[in-house]
Amino acid sequence: MMGRTTMGIFLSALFVCLHSASVLAQNVLVVYYSEGGHTQAMAEAVARGARAASDGEVRLLSVDETSADDLPWADAVIVGTPVYAANVAAPVQEFLSHWPWEGGMKDKIGAAFVTGGGISAGEELVQLNILHSMLIYNMIVVGGPTWTEAFGASTVTLEEPFTDTREEPWIDPRFLAKGVALGERVAQLAARLEGGD
Amino acid sequence: MMGRTTMGIFLSALFVCLHSASVLAQNVLVVYYSEGGHTQAMAEAVARGARAASDGEVRLLSVDETSADDLPWADAVIVGTPVYAANVAAPVQEFLSHWPWEGGMKDKIGAAFVTGGGISAGEELVQLNILHSMLIYNMIVVGGPTWTEAFGASTVTLEEPFTDTREEPWIDPRFLAKGVALGERVAQLAARLEGGD
Amino acid sequence: MMGRTTMGIFLSALFVCLHSASVLAQNVLVVYYSEGGHTQAMAEAVARGARAASDGEVRLLSVDETSADDLPWADAVIVGTPVYAANVAAPVQEFLSHWPWEGGMKDKIGAAFVTGGGISAGEELVQLNILHSMLIYNMIVVGGPTWTEAFGASTVTLEEPFTDTREEPWIDPRFLAKGVALGERVAQLAARLEGGD
Amino acid sequence: MMGRTTMGIFLSALFVCLHSASVLAQNVLVVYYSEGGHTQAMAEAVARGARAASDGEVRLLSVDETSADDLPWADAVIVGTPVYAANVAAPVQEFLSHWPWEGGMKDKIGAAFVTGGGISAGEELVQLNILHSMLIYNMIVVGGPTWTEAFGASTVTLEEPFTDTREEPWIDPRFLAKGVALGERVAQLAARLEGGD
Repeated sequence: MMGRTTMGIFLSALFVCLHSASVLAQNVLVVYYSEGGHTQAMAEAVARGARAASDGEVRLLSVDETSADDLPWADAVIVGTPVYAANVAAPVQEFLSHWPWEGGMKDKIGAAFVTGGGISAGEELVQLNILHSMLIYNMIVVGGPTWTEAFGASTVTLEEPFTDTREEPWIDPRFLAKGVALGERVAQLAARLEGGD
Repeated sequence: MMGRTTMGIFLSALFVCLHSASVLAQNVLVVYYSEGGHTQAMAEAVARGARAASDGEVRLLSVDETSADDLPWADAVIVGTPVYAANVAAPVQEFLSHWPWEGGMKDKIGAAFVTGGGISAGEELVQLNILHSMLIYNMIVVGGPTWTEAFGASTVTLEEPFTDTREEPWIDPRFLAKGVALGERVAQLAARLEGGD
Repeated sequence: MMGRTTMGIFLSALFVCLHSASVLAQNVLVVYYSEGGHTQAMAEAVARGARAASDGEVRLLSVDETSADDLPWADAVIVGTPVYAANVAAPVQEFLSHWPWEGGMKDKIGAAFVTGGGISAGEELVQLNILHSMLIYNMIVVGGPTWTEAFGASTVTLEEPFTDTREEPWIDPRFLAKGVALGERVAQLAARLEGGD
Repeated sequence: MMGRTTMGIFLSALFVCLHSASVLAQNVLVVYYSEGGHTQAMAEAVARGARAASDGEVRLLSVDETSADDLPWADAVIVGTPVYAANVAAPVQEFLSHWPWEGGMKDKIGAAFVTGGGISAGEELVQLNILHSMLIYNMIVVGGPTWTEAFGASTVTLEEPFTDTREEPWIDPRFLAKGVALGERVAQLAARLEGGD
């Protein structure tokens, strides 16, 4: 038979354990800049993936729509940009260079996606420029789940056979699939890392 | 009063919880290549930091000393190299390009440290080249705990005022401190991530 | 004795030769963004070096002062920026991403200088991000004359022993010397390349 | 009428001018490492382009075939490698890290080509790693003539629709064309730069 005190300890321990299991609902912020619509389409794919893999909340915002609350709220941040002259778009750099300093972003998970023109014309560099900025803020950075999204999700829209010649922004489905896979992996890792707190 | 069945459930749940807390003993591999001794000295600092922050095991090995078992064993891998022509030493690249493929390294934590000659003469690039290789293997990459080790632990040995003119390999203590801090952070993150499995 | 026709040919040939030697006066544009004054101080050092090595004209302008004429005018362009989150300042990226496309910058010489906070905290990356953008425009890129300015001229202002604690923006003379050396080399190469037209 | 002395001066000047025009025969070294044959096929395309654009000599060598004379001989060096874990092959890094130091490579033209597996899986990085090493040696670095070869000539062989499933190493003709274009541009620039000496 179990005394009241013993049972109280058991119950407390169990509560702590179950609680720590239950707070796995992580917050994922997908934030992007898009002029022509391609990067927005990728952002939606990334958010779709994050939502499918996550019990938590996913916010999908353009850099202009973000407020001061979004970054502290997020457990993971996935940033997307078009490739301009082998670097992030200026509004994305304006955004990235004003993130909370002094540990405010530390240990949050970071990832990136881009839409570029040609094959090997800046997509890798720009994904990595975003990850490098995140490392400056002491974030934990990742790419997608396989080597074809090693540095994040990358899209080509102006070189054959990927050229988009339609009226509506169109992205080859293989690139959208990389976006979904990136969102899934980031949401899963955010849950794992939060569970380990 | 508590019935036997109920109590059995409680005990089982508690066992699972305590067990998941108890397996936080993570394995950290510090692996390096060193010709002149500077990178080895940094490797020892990194390993010291990892041991101080970890209940788990830390292996400190040169690339020549590694065996096929070391990488699968490790929860986190920290790679160090001298800077040769703004890139990793060839034996380090030989090592990195033969890691287990197809998910074998996936979700392990990766980090880097380097010893270079001059200020802005390849140290950043080489730390990042190592992290980029780790991203190709779908690892989770991090730097040290503050922005002065954003991409890992970096050492300068041939430009004033850091020039090493002694007979024994000598490293400015500020750089050794960065190595220790890097080892600590990686060991702590490995524990957090393992707890979240 | 020499006939009139023959002599005419000689004179014409001589004129062409002398003329091609005389047009070595190349135009160097030094363009920068500066908030605290450090990058401006470096820009002045770079321009000083270019003027010392060049018979041509050197324009020293902030990104805000540039006009549509400056880039077509220039034979060489040297871009400077502070390091913000391991990337160029947003106004510099705004500037770089609107350069003349379709060969407008092709075969011009490009180089970079930066002022950063800590050692290995983005200086290399940002110099190279500028050079990578220049490569997208099919420019010819160079660093300074020795390996300590391999990627351009780099300055550290916030990590010991280089911390600037004065009221006026101050830069360690060793970094200013790198700026001068970069300006000299770029002006000299511009002259050589123009002579080879 | 022209006196003997005057005519002598004319003739001397003319000789100097014509001579400086006649020494435009530059030497281009194309050097590569290849296991499966793809990088060798690209190297042949690059050499073909260089030969078509040059009156000078073009040497096409694997890294194993190079001798101590090749680098001093060359006015331009184009290095090719497969992409291994987002970096150059180890034999290429072994080669690159033993180039003549202390100005031995200064002002030579450098360029790069790579064969990688997937889109955005290291091709850009590896081209740039080679260019970064060349910058450490104070070389002058360039890509191809248009933005689709901005960082050099890049090839994808393992991701759809570029997957090579044939018995013989096969490369999509669009990538070979980039190699040819790179060789042409480098040979032309070498001639221009030599003419400006």
